[in-house]
Amino acid sequence: MSSTRDIDALIEMMAKLPGLGPRSARRAVLHLIRKRALQLTPLADLMQTVAATARECVNCGNVGTADVCDICTSEKRANGEICVVEDVADLWAMERAGVFKGRYHVLGGTLSALDAIGPQELRIPRLIDRVSSEGITEVILALNATIDGQTTAHYIADRLEGQVRLTSLAQGVPIGGELDYLDDGTISAAMRARKAL
Amino acid sequence: MSSTRDIDALIEMMAKLPGLGPRSARRAVLHLIRKRALQLTPLADLMQTVAATARECVNCGNVGTADVCDICTSEKRANGEICVVEDVADLWAMERAGVFKGRYHVLGGTLSALDAIGPQELRIPRLIDRVSSEGITEVILALNATIDGQTTAHYIADRLEGQVRLTSLAQGVPIGGELDYLDDGTISAAMRARKAL
Ligand SMILES: [Zn+2]
Ligand SMILES: [Zn+2]
Repeated sequence: MSSTRDIDALIEMMAKLPGLGPRSARRAVLHLIRKRALQLTPLADLMQTVAATARECVNCGNVGTADVCDICTSEKRANGEICVVEDVADLWAMERAGVFKGRYHVLGGTLSALDAIGPQELRIPRLIDRVSSEGITEVILALNATIDGQTTAHYIADRLEGQVRLTSLAQGVPIGGELDYLDDGTISAAMRARKAL
Repeated sequence: MSSTRDIDALIEMMAKLPGLGPRSARRAVLHLIRKRALQLTPLADLMQTVAATARECVNCGNVGTADVCDICTSEKRANGEICVVEDVADLWAMERAGVFKGRYHVLGGTLSALDAIGPQELRIPRLIDRVSSEGITEVILALNATIDGQTTAHYIADRLEGQVRLTSLAQGVPIGGELDYLDDGTISAAMRARKAL
């Protein structure tokens, strides 16, 4: 390779990001080197800022810049409803759809016997706490329509049965589909037509 | 959006990189925030370093960290042969194929009447200079098999006719194909079977 060690190392790090590969990393790095004053330096600065300030909300697991995130502290969001999602990307997908005005709970994954992920590895105990301490009346299980997602939904439903209204996203989530791949309209329709478990 | 302004801004900047879009940028940023100590901070540091040190070689247009790049200064590369490519990604593709041991010249694009890109907008005058000042005996025109690439090759061939042996990559470059998309074997075969113009 003709490029020097730092440039090679930068391409290698970029290539490991989800959604990128060696070729797109090379293209991105060349583009950034060409625009190093206008794009590479500002991007590096912004990454430093985010690295120093971003953290996970201690209450819900969302990503933000405070110990408790904007959604948890907002007075404009409805109390009493929690929408449970697998990860922050799913929370963002729900927010883009704009149909839910309650609070969220990000599990940080799904139960998985194969990967030895039990309730304690996720934010399930914290969810159970929140349901009683925040006076929750409805828990919407917006988990992916995968086997692990649905196993996790049933586990949570069992734990919370009789305490709250339990619902799940209904129409429009295709078998094997993941929320973050769906268009906003599909998510909206599924949210509006949510059904009791 | 639930994410704060800096996180949104970072996603937006990443989404503009070639090969990425909003969805892969969101995934990449979430991944980096999760691994902020191990990946986000080192990546930001590396970008700062590259932004401060990377530059274009004044002789050939390759990217490196010195005014004149490693390939131009290397004593292990053959003198007398220049391989002309459109951009640095193509030079890297040639180097990965590993069949060429001479020097390079990166034009920085192709002639284009539509975009008003003439010889002066590319590194064509510098190429003409190099051919005489470096005692070049063969110029290999490794331009993309696109209309603009071939127009540019013919223009350069006209300018250099009678001064040097002019060749182009031969077999294996598909019509409309771009070097950076080809596998190393195809590039090797095309290089070995190069033909006189
Ligand atoms: Zn929160
Ligand atoms: Zn050079």
